[in-house]
Amino acid sequence: VRQGETEKEVRDAKPRPDTSSGQRLSSIVGAVLDSCRSSAIDGEDHAPFPSSREIVHISEDLMDLLFPGCATDDAPSGDAAEHVDALVRKVFRRLSVQISMSLRHGCLKSGALCERCAAWGQEKAMLLLETFPRLRELLVADVKAAFGRDPAAKSLEEVVLSYPGLVAITVYRVAHELWLLDVPFIPRMMTEYAHGKTGIDIHPGAKIGSSFFIDHGTGVVIGETTEIGDNVTIYQGVTLGGYRFKKRPDGSLERGYKRHPTVGDDVIIYAGATVLGGDTVVGARSVIGGSVWLTHSVPPDAVVTISEPELKYKVGY
Amino acid sequence: VRQGETEKEVRDAKPRPDTSSGQRLSSIVGAVLDSCRSSAIDGEDHAPFPSSREIVHISEDLMDLLFPGCATDDAPSGDAAEHVDALVRKVFRRLSVQISMSLRHGCLKSGALCERCAAWGQEKAMLLLETFPRLRELLVADVKAAFGRDPAAKSLEEVVLSYPGLVAITVYRVAHELWLLDVPFIPRMMTEYAHGKTGIDIHPGAKIGSSFFIDHGTGVVIGETTEIGDNVTIYQGVTLGGYRFKKRPDGSLERGYKRHPTVGDDVIIYAGATVLGGDTVVGARSVIGGSVWLTHSVPPDAVVTISEPELKYKVGY
Amino acid sequence: VRQGETEKEVRDAKPRPDTSSGQRLSSIVGAVLDSCRSSAIDGEDHAPFPSSREIVHISEDLMDLLFPGCATDDAPSGDAAEHVDALVRKVFRRLSVQISMSLRHGCLKSGALCERCAAWGQEKAMLLLETFPRLRELLVADVKAAFGRDPAAKSLEEVVLSYPGLVAITVYRVAHELWLLDVPFIPRMMTEYAHGKTGIDIHPGAKIGSSFFIDHGTGVVIGETTEIGDNVTIYQGVTLGGYRFKKRPDGSLERGYKRHPTVGDDVIIYAGATVLGGDTVVGARSVIGGSVWLTHSVPPDAVVTISEPELKYKVGY
Repeated sequence: VRQGETEKEVRDAKPRPDTSSGQRLSSIVGAVLDSCRSSAIDGEDHAPFPSSREIVHISEDLMDLLFPGCATDDAPSGDAAEHVDALVRKVFRRLSVQISMSLRHGCLKSGALCERCAAWGQEKAMLLLETFPRLRELLVADVKAAFGRDPAAKSLEEVVLSYPGLVAITVYRVAHELWLLDVPFIPRMMTEYAHGKTGIDIHPGAKIGSSFFIDHGTGVVIGETTEIGDNVTIYQGVTLGGYRFKKRPDGSLERGYKRHPTVGDDVIIYAGATVLGGDTVVGARSVIGGSVWLTHSVPPDAVVTISEPELKYKVGY
Repeated sequence: VRQGETEKEVRDAKPRPDTSSGQRLSSIVGAVLDSCRSSAIDGEDHAPFPSSREIVHISEDLMDLLFPGCATDDAPSGDAAEHVDALVRKVFRRLSVQISMSLRHGCLKSGALCERCAAWGQEKAMLLLETFPRLRELLVADVKAAFGRDPAAKSLEEVVLSYPGLVAITVYRVAHELWLLDVPFIPRMMTEYAHGKTGIDIHPGAKIGSSFFIDHGTGVVIGETTEIGDNVTIYQGVTLGGYRFKKRPDGSLERGYKRHPTVGDDVIIYAGATVLGGDTVVGARSVIGGSVWLTHSVPPDAVVTISEPELKYKVGY
Repeated sequence: VRQGETEKEVRDAKPRPDTSSGQRLSSIVGAVLDSCRSSAIDGEDHAPFPSSREIVHISEDLMDLLFPGCATDDAPSGDAAEHVDALVRKVFRRLSVQISMSLRHGCLKSGALCERCAAWGQEKAMLLLETFPRLRELLVADVKAAFGRDPAAKSLEEVVLSYPGLVAITVYRVAHELWLLDVPFIPRMMTEYAHGKTGIDIHPGAKIGSSFFIDHGTGVVIGETTEIGDNVTIYQGVTLGGYRFKKRPDGSLERGYKRHPTVGDDVIIYAGATVLGGDTVVGARSVIGGSVWLTHSVPPDAVVTISEPELKYKVGY
C-alpha cells in the first residue's frame, strides 16, 4: 500500500528541473573525490591495488591447473600437455602482475612500478607454481579423503567436479603458500573468493594437515592461527574461532598471537560445533558432536556430545 | 551399481525415433508458453522486469564508485578523477533504465514505457547518486570499525579488498537508499546479490547505524523491520528475525508491522546467536554470547551467555 | 610487523638468477603432468568431463526458460514466443553435449565419442525438457507458497526476482529429473552451482513434494535420501542429514541406503534445527522449533521446541 501510494505521487509529481543532469553528476564526482582525498583510504596518489576480478580469474585457472582432467574450461584442448603448458604460462604472467601490484604498497617508491617490485612479483609467482607438484599430491589425498568419508560420493571425479569443500581447500592451499611467501592482500582475496563461492571461510594463515575433508561446508570458519592435523573431517557450520581478544593498554587490539584452536590428527567435528580459543586443543582421534560449544581442551580419543537437550512437545495444538 | 546398470541399459537401448527433435522442441515451447499464459506470473503482456544480471553489474560498479582506490576493474585508468567520472555516468545511465523498468509495473500504461516512468527512473537514479558522498563517509567509518575490531585485519585496504561484511554493508546501504526512494524490486535484487556473494542476508528495509561491523558473516540474517544503533558488531550465523507471524482473519499473513528486533548502540552479538521478535530490544552496550536464543528484551549493559551446556565425555571408545 | 620486515628483506634481496623462467615453467608443467599420470584422477587418457562453467550457463538459461517473464537476460526479445523458442533450442543443443560427455565415462569406448553416447545425450536432454511444463506448474506453486508464507514478500514477481530459496528449488527440481534419468555428474554439478549461489545445499537425489518454501536459506542441507512431503517450510540453517554411517566389514562406508529423514506434509522447521537419521520421521503438520536437535521420530501434529536455555546475565560489567 505504502509503495503503491508513493508511486502514484511519484508519477504525478515532476522531476526537479532546477539543475541539468550533467551538472548534478559533476557535483557527485567532485564530492566523491573530495571524500577520497580526505579519508585514510582511496587517496588519489595510491598505486593501484590487486584487482578482485583478476584474482577470481587467476584462482579459477589455478584450480584448472591443479585438476587438469576436470578443467572448467569450455573447450579444453585435446592434448593435456599443451593445455597444462598454456595454463601455467598464462597464470605465471597474470599472477606476476598482481603480486607486483600488491608488493608496491609496502615499497617506498610507490609512485611508479619499481624494478624490484616487478622482479619480485615474477619470482614469487614462480615460487608458488613450483609448489604445485607437491600441492597436487596433497589435493589428491584430499579428494580421496572426501570419497572415503562421504557415502553420497559416487567417484573421485564427482568430488573434483562438485564438492565445495574441495574448492575451499584447494584455494586455501594455494593461498597459504602465497601467505608463506609474504605476499600481501592476495592470499586473503583468494580465500575470500572461495568463501563467497562455497560459504567456507578459511584464513590463509591457518595450518592444515593432509587428507582434510569438509562436507557441505556452508558457514565453516577457520581462523588465522588455527592448527589442524592430518585426516581431519569437519561438517557445515563448524567454527574454529577466537575467544575474548587481548587488548593493548591503549585499548586497541593485540594482533598476531595465537587466538584459534589446535585440532589433532584424525579428529571429526560434526555440524554446527563451535571450538574457540588459542589454548584449546582437541586431542587426536577425538569426536566433537554436532552443536557442541567448546572453549577448553579435550584429551585424545574423547567423544564429546551435547546432552540431548530437553525438548517440549505439544500434540494437537 | 544402480547407475552402472542403468547406463548399460541406456547404451543398449535405442533413442525413441517416433517424432523428430524439431517437433518435440516445438511442443515444449508451446506447453511452456501455455503455462505462462495461465499463471499469475510470466504473462505474455508483461513489461520486462529489471534484469538480475544487469543489477549485478550495476552493484559491482557502485562498489567501485564508493571505493575507487580499490576498484575491481581490470585496468583502472591512471587518473582517479577520469575513472570516477566515467563510472558515475555509466552507473547513472544503466541504473536509470533499470529503475524505469521497475516503476512500469506500478504504472497503468504498462504496455509501453511511459514518459513519466522514464523521467522518474532518471530522477531516482540521480537522487541515489547524490547520497554517495554521505554514504562514503558512513562506509569509511564501517571500514575503520572492521579494522579496529578484528585482530586479523592488517590494514584498512585489506578490509575493502577482502571482507565480505563490507560488501554486504555497502550493498545494503545503497539498496536502503533506493528503498527509501520507493523503488520496487531493485533494492531486494541488490541485497540478494550481496547475500549470494557473502552469505549475509540484510533486508534493504532494515535501519542500521554507523560503524557497523559483521565478521565472517555467513548465515547472518537481518530482517526487514530490524533497527540497529551505532557501533554494533555481529558475527557469523546471527539471526535478527521474526517470531510468530500475525495472521489476518482470512488466514493470510499480516504484512508491514514491526516483526524484527531493535539493537542499541555499542552492542556485540557473537556467532550463531538468534534474537527474535518485534518487541525485543537489546539495550545499549549489551553483549549477546554465541549461540544464545533470545525472544525477550535485555537491559543496557547486560552480558547474556548460554549456561555452558553439559557435555558428555567418553574416552577410549 | 612481520610482513613489513620480510618485505624489506624481499626488496633488498635479489631474484634467483640460476635458471631461466622458461626452463622453470617447463619443469612445473612436467611435474604436474607426472602427478596426473600417477594419480587415480586426471589421467591423460580421460575423455573430458562436463564443464563446470558450461553447466553454470545452462543452469542460468534453464531458470530463464522456466520463468521467461523474469528472464535475467540483458535484452529480452520483445516477443515471448520467440524468446522461449530460442532458449529451448539453445539449451537443448548445449545440454545434449554435456550429457554426452558425462555418459562417456561409463562407456567402454571412452577414447572417442561413440554414437550411442551422442544419441543418448540428445535423448536425455529432450526427456528433461519434456518435463518442463510439469516443472513450471510445480514451480509456480513454490512461488505462491513463498508469497503466502513470508510477510516481507511484496509480490509473486519479487519472489522470482530475489528469493534464493526459489533459485535452489528450481535448480533442484531440474537436477532431480536428470538424476531420475541416470545422468552422471551433472545433477550434482547443478545443485552445487545453486549451493554456491544461495548457500542452500539440496542433493539432487532427495524427493521433495509440491509448494516447498525455504526462507533465507543460507546453511540449509538436505541429504541424498531425504523425503519431504507437500507444503513444507524450512528456514535458514536447517540440516536434514545423516547420523552415524554404516560401515562394511572392510571398514569402507556402506553406500546407497536411506540415511536421511522423512518429513511429512505441512511441516514447518525453524532456523538452525537439525534433523538426522534415515529412520527419523517428522509427522504431518508438526512444527520443529528453532535450534532443535532431533534424532528420533515425532508424531503428526506435534510442536517440538527447545526448553528455553538457561541464560546467564551480568549487568554493568
